Amino acid sequence: MDQVLRFIDDQRARFVDELATWVKIPAISSDPAHKADMRKNAEYLMNEMRRLKADRVELWETPGHPAVFASFMHAPGGPTLLVYGHHDVQPVDPLDEWISPPFEPAIREGRMWGRGVVDDKGQVWIHVKAIEAFLETAKKLPINLKLIVEGEEEIGSDHLDGLMREHAADLSADFVCVSDTAMFGRGIPSLCVGLRGLAILEVQVSGPRQDLHSGSFGGGVANPVNALARMIASLHDESGTITVPGFYDKVKTLTDAERKEIAGLPFDEKEWLASTGSPSVTGEKGFSTLERIWARPTLDCNGIWGGFQGEGSKTIIPARASAKITCRLVPDQDPDEIARLVGAHLEKVAPPGVKVKVTPSHGGHPYLAPTDHPVFDVAKRAFAKAFGRPTVFIREGGSIPFVRTIADATGKPCLLMGFGQPDENAHAPNEWIDLENFHLGIKSAAHLYDELGRLPAEGKR
Amino acid sequence: MDQVLRFIDDQRARFVDELATWVKIPAISSDPAHKADMRKNAEYLMNEMRRLKADRVELWETPGHPAVFASFMHAPGGPTLLVYGHHDVQPVDPLDEWISPPFEPAIREGRMWGRGVVDDKGQVWIHVKAIEAFLETAKKLPINLKLIVEGEEEIGSDHLDGLMREHAADLSADFVCVSDTAMFGRGIPSLCVGLRGLAILEVQVSGPRQDLHSGSFGGGVANPVNALARMIASLHDESGTITVPGFYDKVKTLTDAERKEIAGLPFDEKEWLASTGSPSVTGEKGFSTLERIWARPTLDCNGIWGGFQGEGSKTIIPARASAKITCRLVPDQDPDEIARLVGAHLEKVAPPGVKVKVTPSHGGHPYLAPTDHPVFDVAKRAFAKAFGRPTVFIREGGSIPFVRTIADATGKPCLLMGFGQPDENAHAPNEWIDLENFHLGIKSAAHLYDELGRLPAEGKR
Repeated sequence: MDQVLRFIDDQRARFVDELATWVKIPAISSDPAHKADMRKNAEYLMNEMRRLKADRVELWETPGHPAVFASFMHAPGGPTLLVYGHHDVQPVDPLDEWISPPFEPAIREGRMWGRGVVDDKGQVWIHVKAIEAFLETAKKLPINLKLIVEGEEEIGSDHLDGLMREHAADLSADFVCVSDTAMFGRGIPSLCVGLRGLAILEVQVSGPRQDLHSGSFGGGVANPVNALARMIASLHDESGTITVPGFYDKVKTLTDAERKEIAGLPFDEKEWLASTGSPSVTGEKGFSTLERIWARPTLDCNGIWGGFQGEGSKTIIPARASAKITCRLVPDQDPDEIARLVGAHLEKVAPPGVKVKVTPSHGGHPYLAPTDHPVFDVAKRAFAKAFGRPTVFIREGGSIPFVRTIADATGKPCLLMGFGQPDENAHAPNEWIDLENFHLGIKSAAHLYDELGRLPAEGKR
Repeated sequence: MDQVLRFIDDQRARFVDELATWVKIPAISSDPAHKADMRKNAEYLMNEMRRLKADRVELWETPGHPAVFASFMHAPGGPTLLVYGHHDVQPVDPLDEWISPPFEPAIREGRMWGRGVVDDKGQVWIHVKAIEAFLETAKKLPINLKLIVEGEEEIGSDHLDGLMREHAADLSADFVCVSDTAMFGRGIPSLCVGLRGLAILEVQVSGPRQDLHSGSFGGGVANPVNALARMIASLHDESGTITVPGFYDKVKTLTDAERKEIAGLPFDEKEWLASTGSPSVTGEKGFSTLERIWARPTLDCNGIWGGFQGEGSKTIIPARASAKITCRLVPDQDPDEIARLVGAHLEKVAPPGVKVKVTPSHGGHPYLAPTDHPVFDVAKRAFAKAFGRPTVFIREGGSIPFVRTIADATGKPCLLMGFGQPDENAHAPNEWIDLENFHLGIKSAAHLYDELGRLPAEGKR
């Protein structure tokens, strides 16, 4: 391992240069204009895999953008690790808020700035370089390693389930490692052990056939905007608790140990609040801010519209009003059930004089890692070695569709070993990665491979 | 009068054609792109006044769109009637809901369809043609008649007060007639004796600096859309009563006689409801539908917006949300006071974690006519003669800023003699005027002039 680590130190600058070259390819999966860039982007990764002489390097086509698969089966009889990442990136709007152009990576303040530097190209490259470090020194990896890097994570991973069914055998492994999350803070190695799920619905309230003159008709018939506001208001009580019957029925209560662990994290609430720009923290009573964003379900209107939105005033009763609603879910809430419960509640509380149409969409399940599995101790140790301080268990309020899918499909434990930071602007202008995290991330991955190599294969335990 | 009425019958088709020609000019006062059309529109009316050899025909400039003034002082020592109308029209959005194009007037079902046919070009033309009928037969009018046709009614009559101060002497009269309202139903001559006022405000709720990822932040900070919905919901209670403290303090209670008169009208609630397309009537408990739309104040959101409104879903906590709110007022509510009360209430009920900005706009006062004045009997009689059935007193839920202004400025009684119908789509797609109403309207105006000519001038009574 000394040689491996020394190699990583020696090649530090080259690794950064290579990441910058990859980041220059504008792999925006949501924009059809970048379809060719997506292939070029996948090709860049495949060429590197070929250079490292992977056993297999394959482009897996989907009806959307292709995924890249590679494998290094260097440890016959040894354990197999499946590493997941994605090569597509978020859109860049609003472009004028970027300090340096999103696809011309720049180094400032010990960070690399650019779209995809941390979400998720930088984190994929961490694994690629850890692999290289073994191959250039020990000439082989201490484990069998498979890499799946999809091209549609930022647009909902729509074709991932299909790929996983089609390539179930190719993807079989003893452990899974996903590097697409953030560390709790600079220099704090963090394993993410929980992700929230997502229930999605849209509600439309309609009243009159068309907008009515509020003078002639106001007071005579229901106003869909007023009605929708009333319905949305009814979804929470004064204490911020969601009032939809059955909403909390399947929520796993936080254990005292979990609450203690969360309370022990060095969370600077004031700094966190400043990063949002909101006037104060607030939410469900009885829970700390970290508990609320990690381990409690929410119900947010993501958008609302109806009637006149222009300059000045227009005295109408709008014909209709709509809202987009998503709920962040925690184990063991079910996305379809929650969308149904919220929809039914909205229909029930609708005031007289309006019609309500609820349209649920496909959501995602929450995830909680089996932290009593021994591999979590192994990962903690590996991570801590690179960063020189203890690894903490954290959660993430968002979703990574792959995690729940792979967990359900394989039943194998999934290590969410992320190297970003919470304020990295992953989906906003001026995305950045801390270059020290990038460097220590490569070492963390190397330690992880090394430690896993000393474990017996999962099947043999 | 026989000759006058025969002329009106004989020229019926031509009068309709002339109205159609005027309607073709897209006089949308709210759209700066139609500034030149507004002048062309005024010019069309002025040319007709010149053709009828009015004593004075003047274009009265304002900082916005011009008004047209004309006078026929044919009865020295006799009473003077001031007729008010407006030549500007509402916008036409949504254009694709029009069955025939808004500025290509079409005749279907005994109606003319087009923007402004009834609000208010058709009603102005009714007076112009009644004037013509006298001039072409009796060669003079039985009264002194002044006509003021403004160009900014649909955008709040902002410069009307200025015009009225500047031209106070020009506008002096014994009686005022405003034709810009609707009849109670087809063939029912109706004098409108009450108008509601208007309070206007906009509220903006802001939370985070920019849209936040609802996964990473959801549950931690307030969501401005949820907050705004909650605030709007708090403006009414379960019974449809407005909860803003002080809102009803100055409301004049309906007398038993007024309630009886309203209850006696041939109101077909089912048909009225069908004209709206709403699933049911609803509103403030304890009042009939007619009472609610005529004589009770309301609070309506005319528009709401915030966050993501596109296809699919976007999991954000929106940075802000806004709503446009107007209240219809009844005597003796004050628009500025009500806007202030509603704004203060919204600020008070705002949940933690958001900032609230309330922007009130200039509204209008409610109006109640002095129906004990003898001119109301005269007008009732004239109107009834043309339509062959008794005239009813009604109210109108909307506002006509001019009415309250002229009433306050002159102290003279104002006759609201309207020829529209309640379901005429005045501010919506597919505006229409009943051509029989248009025809009998011209006769009504002629009868009114004739009857007023037999009254002594107001000053001499």
